[in-house]
Amino acid sequence: MSESTLQAFLGRYPQWASKPGPLSEVILSSRVRLARNLEAVPFPTMGTPDQMKGVAQRIQQACQFVPRLKESDFLPVADLEPHELDFLLERRLISRDLAMGKRHSAVVVEFGEELSLMVNEEDHLRLQGVVSGFRLGEALDLVSEVDDELEGHVGFAFSESFGYLTACPTNVGTGMRASVLAHLPALSITGEARKVIQGAAALGLAVRGFYGEGTEIMGNFVQISNQTTLGIEENEIVVSLSEKVQKIIDAEAAAREKMWTTAKVQLEDKVYRAQALLQSARSLKSKEVLSLTSAVRFGLALELPDLCSAEVLNEILVFSQSGHVRQWAGRELNREEKREFRATIVRARLHEAGWANGSGSKGWAQGN
Amino acid sequence: MSESTLQAFLGRYPQWASKPGPLSEVILSSRVRLARNLEAVPFPTMGTPDQMKGVAQRIQQACQFVPRLKESDFLPVADLEPHELDFLLERRLISRDLAMGKRHSAVVVEFGEELSLMVNEEDHLRLQGVVSGFRLGEALDLVSEVDDELEGHVGFAFSESFGYLTACPTNVGTGMRASVLAHLPALSITGEARKVIQGAAALGLAVRGFYGEGTEIMGNFVQISNQTTLGIEENEIVVSLSEKVQKIIDAEAAAREKMWTTAKVQLEDKVYRAQALLQSARSLKSKEVLSLTSAVRFGLALELPDLCSAEVLNEILVFSQSGHVRQWAGRELNREEKREFRATIVRARLHEAGWANGSGSKGWAQGN
Repeated sequence: MSESTLQAFLGRYPQWASKPGPLSEVILSSRVRLARNLEAVPFPTMGTPDQMKGVAQRIQQACQFVPRLKESDFLPVADLEPHELDFLLERRLISRDLAMGKRHSAVVVEFGEELSLMVNEEDHLRLQGVVSGFRLGEALDLVSEVDDELEGHVGFAFSESFGYLTACPTNVGTGMRASVLAHLPALSITGEARKVIQGAAALGLAVRGFYGEGTEIMGNFVQISNQTTLGIEENEIVVSLSEKVQKIIDAEAAAREKMWTTAKVQLEDKVYRAQALLQSARSLKSKEVLSLTSAVRFGLALELPDLCSAEVLNEILVFSQSGHVRQWAGRELNREEKREFRATIVRARLHEAGWANGSGSKGWAQGN
Repeated sequence: MSESTLQAFLGRYPQWASKPGPLSEVILSSRVRLARNLEAVPFPTMGTPDQMKGVAQRIQQACQFVPRLKESDFLPVADLEPHELDFLLERRLISRDLAMGKRHSAVVVEFGEELSLMVNEEDHLRLQGVVSGFRLGEALDLVSEVDDELEGHVGFAFSESFGYLTACPTNVGTGMRASVLAHLPALSITGEARKVIQGAAALGLAVRGFYGEGTEIMGNFVQISNQTTLGIEENEIVVSLSEKVQKIIDAEAAAREKMWTTAKVQLEDKVYRAQALLQSARSLKSKEVLSLTSAVRFGLALELPDLCSAEVLNEILVFSQSGHVRQWAGRELNREEKREFRATIVRARLHEAGWANGSGSKGWAQGN
């Protein structure tokens, strides 16, 4: 693909990050994805290249009839450079599996990035809806509408007794996975996170790192999702997951309250130092951005004044990732350059949002 | 003494800290002190309490005839609480020896604190002049004038062959010690400081920590002084010390240049992070203030933009010391409280000077 297509992604913020959403200081985003396969065509891992090429073409054509996808980018994986795939991975638009795949895989991305579609990943179709804050129901509405529209143009493999058929048996039935990206600093710090995560697993939830399956838990961010897809309605999954996530949100709030009463000054100190460093650093490691934004977000949950918004923190999280930094620079960077560019991106975003450090603001402060 | 006298010290900044001075990013202050003893009275360590009481009275009276000291505070050590002595020690107005002494010791402090006088320390009289930046000549002029005026009212012990007589033989002759308080971060970081300090010792200089004899070298601050007092004129001491200090300043500048060309971004990062933390921290240890102000001062020497002035850094250094923090709070503080008050003092000073952090400034930034 041309460099310019991916450049366009740099000029915009994904809606799931930028749009204010309910409880966004704790739940960054809510996601629902549906796995679908075309009737009478082998699953991607088993079909021939020609069959997969045919699947990609049929889906691309069908998208033309879906209003929300009509103007979308259709990006074949084969046309993308490794660093561009990294970029899309960081943007949460493709999976590691899709990035590796060489079976006429592609990704379809709606402009606001709330809706996207992976073609020929594990299944022929993985439809993803992701919205800001804690609103799984809206994410479900989003994908359901598009699912229905697509189904009107391509038939999906469906069994009366099982439901939708998928490559992996764990997805059979609704083919649905719902998840939230949660920020649980108080539970992490007090050491209760492990207990809560074990409890969640006992309730049939899966808890993973920022980028889903197989990734590390960093910066106090975890992804919480349902495990069951068979013998249950889509709405029930959303209601059940939402209730369980609400319990985790309550546990986080209780842990936060407890910390606040015992260590007010230490917490304030940590929060304001973190924001100051984001505003001022000239070199930032990726992990430091995770931990600093985590601290500021904690401050928002504590309702401390004079902090940038959760949306700005989300945008910083997205844009400070290595692939984004490389894309922003427009060339390969060595380690030191990457850290320097990352710090520049973070300062620029805070400045743009009105959160420049006083020392760097023109026409405002006199130093002498 | 009444709490109110020492409270007055909190409302003002010492001139040596607040007044812009030449090369003040490297040389914080220049100091000259003269040791004098009254004729025909035993040295403080050997005299009777009554004799020392007499010395104190005679000096207090003589001060009335010295224009610069006429309005000064005369503070008997016996009237001061331990925490008040700590405060004056931090203000560099008394020595540890005077603070311990119980021989009708006292201190006389001129309003701007450029001039002060210890009574019945090791000698009957220790006259101190301290000015901002690198200007030993002016510090000498200051004390010489007052020395002459005092000598007109009380006779000083003087020998034609030795010069002024003092309790310790190392002070005999001029009775003079000249020193500068230097900030040498580049030499410290590159590890050349040790070599330079050894070289200075070979040239007859003494190099000590922030608070003089017996104190640790912290935050890259060192005190450099002459060793020789006998067989040399006051002016010669000043000229000779100034030349040697200039060589150290040049070595520091060379080390700085070298670091700048090899690690520009790392240095900028360190400097701006340091200022941001001073602006934002809610809890600060004393040693952290030393190291943060040292980093910002280094930035000034590197001529980086958007940094607070050397004078503001000096004031922060003085006012963030434990005794000052305690005095400012008006009561004893536990360790956590002290760190919290210290951070508040530092932020307040930066805010007052126009260097508040953007996130905390009213009517300026919109965060959301």
